Amino acid sequence: MVQKMKLAYIGGGSTAWAWKLMSDLACDETISGEVLLYDIDMEAAKRNEKIGNLSGKGRFVYKAVPTLPEALKGADFVIISILPGGLDCMESDVHYPEKYGIYQSVGDTTGPGGIVRAIRTIPMYVEFAQAIEKYAPNAWVINYTNPMSMCTDTLYRVFPKIKAFGCCHEVFGTQRLLASMLKEVKGLENVQRNEIKVNVKGINHFTWIDSAFYKDIDLLPLYEQFAVKHYEGIDNNDFDEDDSCRMYSFKHRIKFDLFLRYHKIAAAGDRHLAEFCPGQWYLDNPDVVKQWGFGLTTVPARREEYQERYENAMAVINGTREFHPEESGEEGVHQMKALMGMGDLVTNVNLPNQGQVSDLPLGRIVETNAHFTSGKITPVIAGELGGVPHAMTIRVSDNFDQVVTSCLKDDLSGCLSAFQNDQLVTRISHGQAEEMFMAMLKNTEAYLGSYKKIW
Amino acid sequence: MVQKMKLAYIGGGSTAWAWKLMSDLACDETISGEVLLYDIDMEAAKRNEKIGNLSGKGRFVYKAVPTLPEALKGADFVIISILPGGLDCMESDVHYPEKYGIYQSVGDTTGPGGIVRAIRTIPMYVEFAQAIEKYAPNAWVINYTNPMSMCTDTLYRVFPKIKAFGCCHEVFGTQRLLASMLKEVKGLENVQRNEIKVNVKGINHFTWIDSAFYKDIDLLPLYEQFAVKHYEGIDNNDFDEDDSCRMYSFKHRIKFDLFLRYHKIAAAGDRHLAEFCPGQWYLDNPDVVKQWGFGLTTVPARREEYQERYENAMAVINGTREFHPEESGEEGVHQMKALMGMGDLVTNVNLPNQGQVSDLPLGRIVETNAHFTSGKITPVIAGELGGVPHAMTIRVSDNFDQVVTSCLKDDLSGCLSAFQNDQLVTRISHGQAEEMFMAMLKNTEAYLGSYKKIW
Amino acid sequence: MVQKMKLAYIGGGSTAWAWKLMSDLACDETISGEVLLYDIDMEAAKRNEKIGNLSGKGRFVYKAVPTLPEALKGADFVIISILPGGLDCMESDVHYPEKYGIYQSVGDTTGPGGIVRAIRTIPMYVEFAQAIEKYAPNAWVINYTNPMSMCTDTLYRVFPKIKAFGCCHEVFGTQRLLASMLKEVKGLENVQRNEIKVNVKGINHFTWIDSAFYKDIDLLPLYEQFAVKHYEGIDNNDFDEDDSCRMYSFKHRIKFDLFLRYHKIAAAGDRHLAEFCPGQWYLDNPDVVKQWGFGLTTVPARREEYQERYENAMAVINGTREFHPEESGEEGVHQMKALMGMGDLVTNVNLPNQGQVSDLPLGRIVETNAHFTSGKITPVIAGELGGVPHAMTIRVSDNFDQVVTSCLKDDLSGCLSAFQNDQLVTRISHGQAEEMFMAMLKNTEAYLGSYKKIW
Amino acid sequence: MVQKMKLAYIGGGSTAWAWKLMSDLACDETISGEVLLYDIDMEAAKRNEKIGNLSGKGRFVYKAVPTLPEALKGADFVIISILPGGLDCMESDVHYPEKYGIYQSVGDTTGPGGIVRAIRTIPMYVEFAQAIEKYAPNAWVINYTNPMSMCTDTLYRVFPKIKAFGCCHEVFGTQRLLASMLKEVKGLENVQRNEIKVNVKGINHFTWIDSAFYKDIDLLPLYEQFAVKHYEGIDNNDFDEDDSCRMYSFKHRIKFDLFLRYHKIAAAGDRHLAEFCPGQWYLDNPDVVKQWGFGLTTVPARREEYQERYENAMAVINGTREFHPEESGEEGVHQMKALMGMGDLVTNVNLPNQGQVSDLPLGRIVETNAHFTSGKITPVIAGELGGVPHAMTIRVSDNFDQVVTSCLKDDLSGCLSAFQNDQLVTRISHGQAEEMFMAMLKNTEAYLGSYKKIW
Ligand SMILES: [Mg+2]
Ligand SMILES: [Mg+2]
Ligand SMILES: [Mg+2]
Ligand SMILES: [Mg+2]
Repeated sequence: MVQKMKLAYIGGGSTAWAWKLMSDLACDETISGEVLLYDIDMEAAKRNEKIGNLSGKGRFVYKAVPTLPEALKGADFVIISILPGGLDCMESDVHYPEKYGIYQSVGDTTGPGGIVRAIRTIPMYVEFAQAIEKYAPNAWVINYTNPMSMCTDTLYRVFPKIKAFGCCHEVFGTQRLLASMLKEVKGLENVQRNEIKVNVKGINHFTWIDSAFYKDIDLLPLYEQFAVKHYEGIDNNDFDEDDSCRMYSFKHRIKFDLFLRYHKIAAAGDRHLAEFCPGQWYLDNPDVVKQWGFGLTTVPARREEYQERYENAMAVINGTREFHPEESGEEGVHQMKALMGMGDLVTNVNLPNQGQVSDLPLGRIVETNAHFTSGKITPVIAGELGGVPHAMTIRVSDNFDQVVTSCLKDDLSGCLSAFQNDQLVTRISHGQAEEMFMAMLKNTEAYLGSYKKIW
Repeated sequence: MVQKMKLAYIGGGSTAWAWKLMSDLACDETISGEVLLYDIDMEAAKRNEKIGNLSGKGRFVYKAVPTLPEALKGADFVIISILPGGLDCMESDVHYPEKYGIYQSVGDTTGPGGIVRAIRTIPMYVEFAQAIEKYAPNAWVINYTNPMSMCTDTLYRVFPKIKAFGCCHEVFGTQRLLASMLKEVKGLENVQRNEIKVNVKGINHFTWIDSAFYKDIDLLPLYEQFAVKHYEGIDNNDFDEDDSCRMYSFKHRIKFDLFLRYHKIAAAGDRHLAEFCPGQWYLDNPDVVKQWGFGLTTVPARREEYQERYENAMAVINGTREFHPEESGEEGVHQMKALMGMGDLVTNVNLPNQGQVSDLPLGRIVETNAHFTSGKITPVIAGELGGVPHAMTIRVSDNFDQVVTSCLKDDLSGCLSAFQNDQLVTRISHGQAEEMFMAMLKNTEAYLGSYKKIW
Repeated sequence: MVQKMKLAYIGGGSTAWAWKLMSDLACDETISGEVLLYDIDMEAAKRNEKIGNLSGKGRFVYKAVPTLPEALKGADFVIISILPGGLDCMESDVHYPEKYGIYQSVGDTTGPGGIVRAIRTIPMYVEFAQAIEKYAPNAWVINYTNPMSMCTDTLYRVFPKIKAFGCCHEVFGTQRLLASMLKEVKGLENVQRNEIKVNVKGINHFTWIDSAFYKDIDLLPLYEQFAVKHYEGIDNNDFDEDDSCRMYSFKHRIKFDLFLRYHKIAAAGDRHLAEFCPGQWYLDNPDVVKQWGFGLTTVPARREEYQERYENAMAVINGTREFHPEESGEEGVHQMKALMGMGDLVTNVNLPNQGQVSDLPLGRIVETNAHFTSGKITPVIAGELGGVPHAMTIRVSDNFDQVVTSCLKDDLSGCLSAFQNDQLVTRISHGQAEEMFMAMLKNTEAYLGSYKKIW
Repeated sequence: MVQKMKLAYIGGGSTAWAWKLMSDLACDETISGEVLLYDIDMEAAKRNEKIGNLSGKGRFVYKAVPTLPEALKGADFVIISILPGGLDCMESDVHYPEKYGIYQSVGDTTGPGGIVRAIRTIPMYVEFAQAIEKYAPNAWVINYTNPMSMCTDTLYRVFPKIKAFGCCHEVFGTQRLLASMLKEVKGLENVQRNEIKVNVKGINHFTWIDSAFYKDIDLLPLYEQFAVKHYEGIDNNDFDEDDSCRMYSFKHRIKFDLFLRYHKIAAAGDRHLAEFCPGQWYLDNPDVVKQWGFGLTTVPARREEYQERYENAMAVINGTREFHPEESGEEGVHQMKALMGMGDLVTNVNLPNQGQVSDLPLGRIVETNAHFTSGKITPVIAGELGGVPHAMTIRVSDNFDQVVTSCLKDDLSGCLSAFQNDQLVTRISHGQAEEMFMAMLKNTEAYLGSYKKIW
């Protein structure tokens, strides 16, 4: 029996997450249905409609629709993956702070770039939440957009009964690192990343593992030796976010450094981890970055990458290239199947804190494992962060909370307070931070129409 | 590859749980090892040694040992299932209160019988915990003994780092009831009980289900109709605890009655549920019990049953009967395998509350689902009980807490306070309750040697 | 300088609390202002207008007004003391359950009477809260009406920013008992009740004292001896609620009995304490009541008392009797002065739990000390109840919570669930309790117009 | 009647706090007793013995004793005010970090100086706590030593039942500022600082006021205007800590700046507040410090001040100067009297968090108001910090927690982790911070004998 389902895809013109999803839907023989693609760039959605309908064996029908209600009505699942403001905004987010000596390796989650990105994204998420409440209140909602915590938080604040969760693959990379460690240390080949059982907790892109096992092997003692041995970094990197180029690469040095300090495994790519620490530690300047073995992902490089994907899409549409769906390694399809009763799953996911992280405030969006089963996602009790990891995490979580609260009240000066207290921004004075903030707002003002202008 | 393991069985002369375990170990081809049987009745342990070594194909070697340290040293798992004080004590626990018009359907968990049973069991568990701390501090400890909550609590209070959990199959019976409902209502055959996905919470033998799904079917609306339709009770009972006789039977009337009042599924056999409610509701007198469609399990009947099992054991040992191991439906072996990395499992289990039940105090032994995986058990966030179920549950949990605290301080008058506040005992006056308490202590004083005598 | 203030009095025709207030306002030379009397019985309000204007030296002007908005506009303080449904309803509340063998000594707080009284009072409090939000959102609101917890809870649920608190003098009686103990034991004369410093916690009419000092004398060890010595009861009762007749009298036997069981001082009159315990303990039948040394306050006796007060009022109005204001011993005026910056005060008061009682749920109305100062009331951290007192208290608090929630949703069957679980009601079966509940609703249906009729 | 009392003074050779206490004891006619002075500098204690016995009218007898047990036995109150390691250590704490561009205005609470000071103080406090447990377990213990939070925390960790609290006058200065505002804005003369009623919360030297009233005047709206008007700073400073010289002066600019950002009144001297903020805000370099209108308190200046006090002491002893006791404005004597039943007091104090600050972890030492009464101190519910003040505070509190935990485990590398995450230290790299830490330990190693040497 093939299970029928209806998906709404907000940001349906995406060339990254949408393609992964189309691949995964094409590869799974047990499900079928309809995917409605909504995007402010209708042309992009139409391209994906064509590609989607070329993929698979017709079990899924793809359709680009011009409005959000058309996409949402009757949906069992809603997926949100948008690029809020496009690469021009991202250029300001990531590179403008460099004028003040502030370097960002990603710039979409925290730091000055993450906060300004949140400010323009939150009004969009207010609209999504309101539309979901109106047109698909019982749908499961999967968010992939960054800044993950603040986007997901906005959904819950606007529509508290929303059944939303946020997904990210960064922990998978750490599981892969542990699998590769087992190969090196124990000669174990072909350990799958989801055979590495971890207890994970924190906030998206800054999560910590305090228990890791492969079968009956306790991985933490092995990891300690591994971190010491490879403290200078590992070159041949198993994990590439977005199956892509060197600009995403890193040598796990930050991960090892954090482990040796705090005795917990930081579970995200080094590019993300660096941004959650005081700026002077790993992002002090490009030389320091280099020394820690990772790269700053530039927006010009992202533009090139985007152009490649666009050309690839056109080639598929024009029939000059074939689309060979392969499993992406992402878990969205497994999660949806679990929720429909097609096999339980325990995996890491972003949800409001109901106590799964005991030393972060209730209600904050946190990332831990959760049990996906028929009709329900239940987070597991992951315990406390403790110590300096707690101190670093709650500071960022407090800032996120302040940003979301302030945006929802249209109080951008409240956002400024959080911005000035950001771990990358405190290297400059209040006055300089304010000047930078105003300039960054001005650079991206095309997307700030819903706010009182303070810049 | 066959995984090796070493088990210590405290109460290894048991004819109930021990046989189920031997069967399950015999049936599973992927594991092997050693089972050390310790029992104060060494003869009984020796009988099980013989039966165990006759069962299976020799993958497991059984050995009765005369001391606890011999059993525990090197154990990966410790199983505790004892009958504290034997059937003579149980006779007093269950039937003595009848003199005061207090009827108990089980008498081993709560009520006057449950409390007095706890009083004599707690000193035994103090010894077990101390021995485990000394001889097997890293072992996983599975408790099957009642009163479950108080036994497990004692283990944690004495040795806070113990890796103990308590197991009970009462929720399984409710899952089976839901499966049989699916057959009746939807014509679905062969739904397995573990395909019924439930969110369960409460304390052992008084747990509540507020979410139940089979694949994509929400079972709560169906159950409401089912409870109304079968309000007078269901005769042909799918569930028989201990695959046994009518004395354990019930018609689910109490379960239906509680559902119609509180809109949550009470998830235990009616005999247990009745004892957690004010005595006048379902246990007012034998006529009321009959009217609610369940039976009072008498100790004479238990004696007969025990005799049958004993004869059965002798027959197996003498070779006049064969032991055909069959899977028991219990989950102990699955749980142990999960902990060794042989397949994850999410199931209900008794653990100290770390927030999995949001409206019971932290530290109390609660029953919810937990994720069993390599090297770790993590409870899931089951949420709040709320309303009258909360009021009923916390009253009992408070009483349990008071009993354990008082016993550990050798303060039996503190136990008396809890006893007088028990939901079955409040039908009599303080003075009568005290008189009854003292008599029940006297009846069982052979096992109360570690306490200052107040009776 | 005399401080000006404006008071609104809801229930301004009252002959009990209103007269105390008029006396206290008349006695205090430092304040002046206006008192607006609102009552559904406008004649009664007019009588109090006359008496009020005869009292004092004209510093306060009294005025009966026909509508709530007229009373509230511009008020600095709002006082609510009503008799919801009058003595006819109370007759049913208190005496109808006697048909089922359920005796109540007060019947206005908990027990079947307290719950049915709550059901008819909550809609009135919804109106009060809405009117206060509209007409006097910044006023301090003092509630004297029972059931205290449920009335105050309703105010906060309807208007969460209300600055309301509930006052009751029952703890004062316990302080007076401790003062009389000091006289007896230490020969100390003239110890004032507010010199007895207590740490108090619980819910209204069922509060517990775990620390009591007079200057540097620790009173708990003395109280233990005192309780033992006077276990049979104290005849010459220092404390008479409402300076009134024997029908309110008691011998503190229950107070002593509870202390010897739980080692905390129960801090309310025995008539109230009895109702929070399982019915069979102190209220089993009139003989048991007598044996415990207290009386059942009958409604016929209340009628007589009311008639006396009415005649007294008429005599004052007609000039045949003079009104000699004397300080009542209540604290309302002191509290209002403290809030206006005229002297700090620490006293017991009913407020939503923000953690002042650590083992009751947040948000529940609890009674502890609080610091009254300029512009602010801040509860103190009173700690945990613990043990059996906790078990008894939370059961009642849960029931209250269920009643308020159900009434606000117009779900009287939810109230029935709580009613059936009440500590006085569990002596009868579900079915009998339902029958009794329906009859009690019917008896008082004149005040249940806002509910769907289920009786 | 004059109340008798016995005090033990640890650090009894002090020329600052001890003199204030002697003055206050001399001024109060209602108390008498004995003060035992213990100090590692016995000569200093002897000087204070002489001065003490010259002060007052002989109601108090002072005696220097050579051992801690002699001081403690029979004490009703224990006062601890020590200078851990003396001014030589303080020279390293405060000035060594300047080599790394890190400036500290006080250097005794947080920042690199505060942490290293804690490291050498904690072992001393372990001894004090053990001795108090042994010799004076029921005494009230008042701590004045900095770092306040970590000293007080150590007392509670070593002897959990200790009745200790920590006192500091920084909030008083803010009350005085509010009083002077009332003079300027409202023309109110002679408002006393304790007539300014504040709700205060946070950690010592970084507390926040969210409610402030004088009689019925709400001070927060006035303060907003006041902060705007005086944003450049107030010259004529009403508040001088230690009645002393310009090196302690400040213009309240930081206080005003923080208020305008966070809408709560930061309630400590600017010199303290600055150290809790990211270093680049107010302490970036000496020019920035000047611009914010406060001074860096240098250790050479402290030496001069100490010398003056020493000469003063000798003059009193030699009879060339008279000792005229005047009330110090401190509250120690009032607090002790309140605890003996000589008048209630509500004031700010440092205690383990039992929920008085709702968004800091339980158990952490926090500063809020508390009710001092006969035999008991009860903190009031001060509520949440919220927003950026919370983010800044919890970061520091987490670091303090980590330092105390690590010192008690003799794990100075755990302290290093906290040190590197300190808000003043994050301006330098991990490596530089480690180098600085080791040097600072080396500079003060004479007091680090109880630790494994890692420097
Ligand atoms: Mg991500
Ligand atoms: Mg069971
Ligand atoms: Mg009352
Ligand atoms: Mg200070």
